Amino acid sequence: MHLNTHYQALHEQYLFSDIARKVNAYRSEHPDAQVISLGIGDVTLPLAPAIVESMRKAVEEMGNAATFHGYGPEQGYPFLREAIANEYAQRSVALEDDEIFISDGAKSDLGNILDLFSADNAVLIPDPVYPVYVDTNLMAGRSIRYLKADKQNHFLPMPDPDVCCDLVYLCSPNNPTGAAYNREQLKAWVEYATGKGAVILFDAAYESFITGDDIPHSIYEIPGADSCAIEFCSFSKMAGFTGVRCGWTIVPHNLRSGGMSLNRMWLRRQTTKFNGVPYIVQRGAQAALSPEGKQQIRESIAYYQQNANAIHQMLTQAQIYHTGGQNSPYIWMECPGKMASWDFFQRLLAAVQVVGTPGAGFGKNGEGFFRLTAFGSHEQTEEAVRRMREFFQMREDGRGSCVRF
Amino acid sequence: MHLNTHYQALHEQYLFSDIARKVNAYRSEHPDAQVISLGIGDVTLPLAPAIVESMRKAVEEMGNAATFHGYGPEQGYPFLREAIANEYAQRSVALEDDEIFISDGAKSDLGNILDLFSADNAVLIPDPVYPVYVDTNLMAGRSIRYLKADKQNHFLPMPDPDVCCDLVYLCSPNNPTGAAYNREQLKAWVEYATGKGAVILFDAAYESFITGDDIPHSIYEIPGADSCAIEFCSFSKMAGFTGVRCGWTIVPHNLRSGGMSLNRMWLRRQTTKFNGVPYIVQRGAQAALSPEGKQQIRESIAYYQQNANAIHQMLTQAQIYHTGGQNSPYIWMECPGKMASWDFFQRLLAAVQVVGTPGAGFGKNGEGFFRLTAFGSHEQTEEAVRRMREFFQMREDGRGSCVRF
Repeated sequence: MHLNTHYQALHEQYLFSDIARKVNAYRSEHPDAQVISLGIGDVTLPLAPAIVESMRKAVEEMGNAATFHGYGPEQGYPFLREAIANEYAQRSVALEDDEIFISDGAKSDLGNILDLFSADNAVLIPDPVYPVYVDTNLMAGRSIRYLKADKQNHFLPMPDPDVCCDLVYLCSPNNPTGAAYNREQLKAWVEYATGKGAVILFDAAYESFITGDDIPHSIYEIPGADSCAIEFCSFSKMAGFTGVRCGWTIVPHNLRSGGMSLNRMWLRRQTTKFNGVPYIVQRGAQAALSPEGKQQIRESIAYYQQNANAIHQMLTQAQIYHTGGQNSPYIWMECPGKMASWDFFQRLLAAVQVVGTPGAGFGKNGEGFFRLTAFGSHEQTEEAVRRMREFFQMREDGRGSCVRF
Repeated sequence: MHLNTHYQALHEQYLFSDIARKVNAYRSEHPDAQVISLGIGDVTLPLAPAIVESMRKAVEEMGNAATFHGYGPEQGYPFLREAIANEYAQRSVALEDDEIFISDGAKSDLGNILDLFSADNAVLIPDPVYPVYVDTNLMAGRSIRYLKADKQNHFLPMPDPDVCCDLVYLCSPNNPTGAAYNREQLKAWVEYATGKGAVILFDAAYESFITGDDIPHSIYEIPGADSCAIEFCSFSKMAGFTGVRCGWTIVPHNLRSGGMSLNRMWLRRQTTKFNGVPYIVQRGAQAALSPEGKQQIRESIAYYQQNANAIHQMLTQAQIYHTGGQNSPYIWMECPGKMASWDFFQRLLAAVQVVGTPGAGFGKNGEGFFRLTAFGSHEQTEEAVRRMREFFQMREDGRGSCVRF
C-alpha cells in the first residue's frame, strides 16, 4: 500500500514533554522546592452537581430495559441541540436545530471538518497558534500561509486584502494569547471572507470567559457570517468537560459553494464516520445549560476568572506587556528584558519556582512571549502571583541574582 | 474555497428510511396488524449491572475535586488498554499496550484510518457490504473494486491472486451476511495481503457471537497478520454499548511501509484529531471485561444467540439457504422462489407482518437475499419465527395467497 506521505512533513510536538523534563530535572536538584505550575491547560474544578446528577440518572436509565438508549442520532439528540439553539437565541443568533451538530469536542471537529474541503485550498493560520490547525492541514498536504500575530497588532491580526485564501482560522478568545476580537474586528474578517469566497473556521472554545460587552461570543453575531463561517465550540472549558468530551459545531444552511451545501456535506460526513456522543454525556451537557447548571458552571468560571485577573493585575502593576487575562483563562506576557521564551522559563523556575509555557512552542511569533493560565487553585495562583511580583520588583530594585534582564 | 467534490459521488442512503416508510404505509392501512421487526440492527437489552455500577462510580468521581479526571490520554487509559491486552492474551495473541487504541466505536476508526493512506490506493471491498467501507473511500476519491460474495462462495469471498490491491476490507463475522471466515480462509487472506503488500482492514465488531472453535476472534490469531492487518473491534454488540460509544483499534508495531510505522502514524493522527473517549465510558468498558461483567454480558449475548438460533433452525427446517445465525447475530437468507429482495420484503410484511432488511440495500450481490437480526426480544422473535414457519409451510402446502413464489 501507499501511505499518506504528508505525515512526514509533521514535526513531533515536544513542548509539554520538554517542560515536564526540565521541571523534573529542577525538582531532582532541589527536592525541597515548592514548584507551582501556571502552565496547566486543563480544568481542575470538578463537574457541577447538576451535571453529576443528570449523568447519574442517565447511567441508571442505561441499566433499565425500559429507558435504555442504543444508537442515537449521529448529529446529537434533539434535547441538546435545542438547548444550544436557545443559548444562541439569547444572543439574538437564530439557528435551526439541524445547523447544530453535537461533537465529542472542538478538537475532533476542527480536524475532521477538513474532509469537506479540497486539498488544494490555501489556508491562513495565525501564528502563534493552537498546533492542531497547522498539523491537520499538513496531514492533508495543504499549503499554509501564516498570519502574523504580534505586539503591533496586539496579537489580533487583521485581514490583508492583498492576501487571498480559501480557509482562515480564527480563535477568539485566543489560545495561546488570550486576545479576543471585538465586534468591529470580526466584522472586518467577515467582510474579507465574503469578498474572497473564503470560509472562516471560528474556534469559540473559550467564549464562556468573555466579560466585555463588545466581544462577540459567536461569529454569527456578525451579520453575513452565516454565509462564510463554521463555528466550533465546546463544553470543555465552559463546564469542565475536558474528560467528559462534548462540544458542538455550527454549519449554517447558508454556507454553500458551487451548488453544494456544506451543512449537508457535514451531515453526510458525520453519519458516515461518526456514531454520535454518548447518551450519558449529552444528558450531562444538557444539565450544564439548565438554569441550575448554568448558575453552577458560572461559579467555576468566576473562580478561574479570579485567577486570571490576579495574574493580569500583577503584570499590569509590573508594567509588563500582556494580552488576555480578561475575557480569557490565558495570559500571554512579554518576557522581560527581551529574553527568549525558554530562557525566561528557566529563569522563572530557578528564581521563584513558577512554571509557565514558553511562547516559542506555539510558533515563530511566540518567541519572546510566555503563556500563563488561570486553571490552578486560588491558593497556588495567589502564591505564584506573590512570587512573580517579588521577582519583577527585584528587577526594579536591582537586587538578587535574577535581575540582569 | 474549493470543496471536496468526491462527496458528489456519494449516493444517499435511503435503505432504512425506505423500510420505515413502507412499514408505516402498511400500518396505516392495517391499523390492527401486529408488525414484528426482525430488522433491528441495534441492541435492545440494557447495560449489565457491573457496567452501570462502574459508570455510576465514575460519575461520582467526576463530581469530586480529589477524583476528577480532565483530559485523558488520546489513545485511552492504561487500565482499559491493559484489560483488552489481557483478553487477547487469552487467545494467545500477544499485544503491547501501545498497539491498542481506545476509540469511540469501530465506525469512527474505520473511517478515520483512511487518513493514513494515500488517496491513490486501490481498495477491495466485499459486496454485499456495510456501506461505511464504500462511502468513506468514495469521499476520498479512491477507486474501489468489489469482491463478489455470493451463494457459490457461501458469502465468504477468497483472494484472487490475479487481483492486486492496497487495502482490503474483511468483516468476520460479517454484517450483513453473518458468514464467518475459518482459520484456513483467514490464513489465505493473510498470505495474499503479505504477498501483495496490502493492508487488511479487519472489522471484528461481531466477534463475541462466535461459538465455533475454528473461527478466529481476531485476525492476529493468524501468524503474520501483525505485519499486514489493522483490527477494529467494539463494545457495541459485545456489551450493549451502541449508545455508550467505545471500541478499540489495533495497529501493530510490525505494520510498516517505506520506513514509516503505521502505529506511530495512527498515534499522531489520534493525538492531533481526537481527544479520547470519556473517562466514565472507559470505566464502563473496563467493567465489561471484569470477571463479573464478562459473566453478565455473556448472558446478554446468549439471549441474542438464542434468537439467532431459533431463526436459523426455522430456515433450516424450511430448507431455505442462509448464512449466519451461528457465530453471528445476523441471518442472511435467500429469498424463496428467486424473488427480488424488496418483493420478498413486501410479501413477508403483507402475509405475516414480519419486517426484515432487503439484501439489495447492501450492494448488487445482496439482490435476492434478505437480512434478519437477533436483537429483538425472545417473545417477539419466537412469534416472528412461528409466523415465518407458517408462511413457508403454506408455500409447501400450496395454500394461501402468498404461495406463488
